[in-house]
Amino acid sequence: MINVAIMGHGVVGSGVAEILIDHADRIEKAVREKVNVKYILDLRDFEGLSYSDKFIKDFEVILNDDDIKVVAEVMGGINPAYDFVKRCLLRGKSVATSNKELVAAKGAELIKIAQENNVNFLFEASVGGGIPILRPMAQCLCANEITQISGILNGTTNYILNKMIVDNMDFSTALSLAQKKGYAEKDPTADIEGHDACRKICILAAMAFGKHVYPEWVYTEGITDITLDDAEYADNFGYVIKLIGHTEKLENGKITASVRPTLVGRNCLLSGVDGVFNAVMVTGDQTGDVIFYGKGAGKKATASAVAADMVDCIKHLNSRKYLFWEDGDELFIEKNYDKSGRFYVCIKSDDYDSLLEQYKSVFSSQKTDCIKNEYRREIAFITDCDRESSIRKKLSGLRNCEYKLLHTML
Amino acid sequence: MINVAIMGHGVVGSGVAEILIDHADRIEKAVREKVNVKYILDLRDFEGLSYSDKFIKDFEVILNDDDIKVVAEVMGGINPAYDFVKRCLLRGKSVATSNKELVAAKGAELIKIAQENNVNFLFEASVGGGIPILRPMAQCLCANEITQISGILNGTTNYILNKMIVDNMDFSTALSLAQKKGYAEKDPTADIEGHDACRKICILAAMAFGKHVYPEWVYTEGITDITLDDAEYADNFGYVIKLIGHTEKLENGKITASVRPTLVGRNCLLSGVDGVFNAVMVTGDQTGDVIFYGKGAGKKATASAVAADMVDCIKHLNSRKYLFWEDGDELFIEKNYDKSGRFYVCIKSDDYDSLLEQYKSVFSSQKTDCIKNEYRREIAFITDCDRESSIRKKLSGLRNCEYKLLHTML
Repeated sequence: MINVAIMGHGVVGSGVAEILIDHADRIEKAVREKVNVKYILDLRDFEGLSYSDKFIKDFEVILNDDDIKVVAEVMGGINPAYDFVKRCLLRGKSVATSNKELVAAKGAELIKIAQENNVNFLFEASVGGGIPILRPMAQCLCANEITQISGILNGTTNYILNKMIVDNMDFSTALSLAQKKGYAEKDPTADIEGHDACRKICILAAMAFGKHVYPEWVYTEGITDITLDDAEYADNFGYVIKLIGHTEKLENGKITASVRPTLVGRNCLLSGVDGVFNAVMVTGDQTGDVIFYGKGAGKKATASAVAADMVDCIKHLNSRKYLFWEDGDELFIEKNYDKSGRFYVCIKSDDYDSLLEQYKSVFSSQKTDCIKNEYRREIAFITDCDRESSIRKKLSGLRNCEYKLLHTML
Repeated sequence: MINVAIMGHGVVGSGVAEILIDHADRIEKAVREKVNVKYILDLRDFEGLSYSDKFIKDFEVILNDDDIKVVAEVMGGINPAYDFVKRCLLRGKSVATSNKELVAAKGAELIKIAQENNVNFLFEASVGGGIPILRPMAQCLCANEITQISGILNGTTNYILNKMIVDNMDFSTALSLAQKKGYAEKDPTADIEGHDACRKICILAAMAFGKHVYPEWVYTEGITDITLDDAEYADNFGYVIKLIGHTEKLENGKITASVRPTLVGRNCLLSGVDGVFNAVMVTGDQTGDVIFYGKGAGKKATASAVAADMVDCIKHLNSRKYLFWEDGDELFIEKNYDKSGRFYVCIKSDDYDSLLEQYKSVFSSQKTDCIKNEYRREIAFITDCDRESSIRKKLSGLRNCEYKLLHTML
């Protein structure tokens, strides 16, 4: 029998407890040994549960119990999770976590500590909830050089954009609905401003390219500026607006990583990912594009990924899963990435006639049509293939105009 | 340094050789040791390659060389692959294969031999080419009970159906084009009659439900009877016709497995899987639907999956990956599975007036409209929710009519 502990009994933590206890048979089958939840750490009281006797409030109990070889950290946030995880690893306990904030901020350090102490630190659930992504990347795609990753990494924003596009709902109405349905938190900042997706693209980039990428190095733009009109124009041009986390290895050996609202072509499967679902497209030099799709959040899905990581930790108690990246340095990141491609542009001006005239002269060579919206005094179009810098230069030369520029992907 | 051998130097075999030799650095990084291809077994001569010195024609050389711990079997077919793989496993060599025919026919036996000899028998490449499916199912989804799997498992038929639907090409023209492009073989039987997809759903069913499912137990229907009109009617009803491999655990504990042309609702991501791509949707009781998508065939993609399995074999030289299923018995399969749902029906009769009249009286309660095609003397419709047996009973009572019935899925 193997004893384990769960730190945190929130949404995911209670899910982990339920899987390990209610589905003990399938866990035993996977591990080929009984797995016993000895402690659940939470400062709150949980009475009336079949496992209420397992709750403790003092982390030191877990730390000092040498019977505990594997710990799930499902508290979320950096403090005190970071301190607890670090001390567990230093004491020779493997840790499975769903905590993307922790992994994005401290991954390289914690992986190194795990390595030095011959234990495992696994975090499949931190990206894409219940969707298998990190393990398949590390194992099944190991004969590939991964060249880029693009993903819909946040279910909340995908739900909101979807409601805007399909139900013609404006941003704030869609956000309220998401909150009502429990898809968005009371304070939705981390989701709608792209911070949550940013943490996930950091983890994916580190997995793919071998060096830690810190969130503060990643260009992050949320969806708060996306209007119903943008969604409609995009639709007219054959695109769907999605919040895309993207990372790519450039020719100079550096990488670029970003989170931004992006126009995804209808031919790309990512454009069909609706509601709270997530999808990650990984491009390998041998496999081409591979997509992983499923529920990116939710109690059961995320908990099942944490439980699977715990199973893996137990099966590798005396060996290390090879999952490693170095600490990163900012030089690894291309700060002045000047993307080449087609861009969505929407220009607005109170002086609509002047706008039309300026558009005509500045974008005279433009091969595709623009949408003219006299009522909103704006023009929207997809640019011809060009460098972003060159388009921005043209745009910033326009008089009395505001503009919005979004990336596109096929 | 680890020595390995490759048996077969066809499309996939040459791809494996190229990855292991040309990309030796990334394989070494994954294994943390140099991997040397010592032998390549093929009866043909291959001169002028950088690795022409590695070719041998005698299997016994590999078998009797105790330096060889890991072997890739990429010959295809059952004989002599079965004999070679079995003898390798018995001699304590791990085997990685892309050979779906072998795994579908002999998987349970070979897995058992591998287990008894404390070696590994891995076959990620046998389903979905370069798409990670089997390993994520076994590992990441291990806390789930898998309830069903539906997949587009054959790129050739998906390409043909796609050409019919999108380019209005009839079946035989689309098949010729697929052959011209190298997507279909000269003798396309295994693809278009569904045998290839059948082998893959057998492997997926065995992985998911723990018992071998032999191809001869699986209801298998190809795409040769699908007409351009079917594709058009389906489109009108909001569906896309795909060749779907399906397996599901029923309430009586038995499983059903089938390969058949199926109408997939446009809301389902599988409907958007075009060209030679594959996608597998796995439903777990915790994760819900998870989809794996990518290139289901092709030299590089498939070879990279074989190479990744070889890496895994090397990393687990003295331990077993837990991948196991028992031998199957026919009692495990529900032979009289009577699906409940909506079905696509197309009825044809030389006596069109009588057809209309009979339809009106037999399907009087039908809630949705039918498509009447006087020119082709047929009627097509999506049935209301009902048991397949009950609909077939109604249909077989029609006088002077032929009918076609296809399953649907959302």
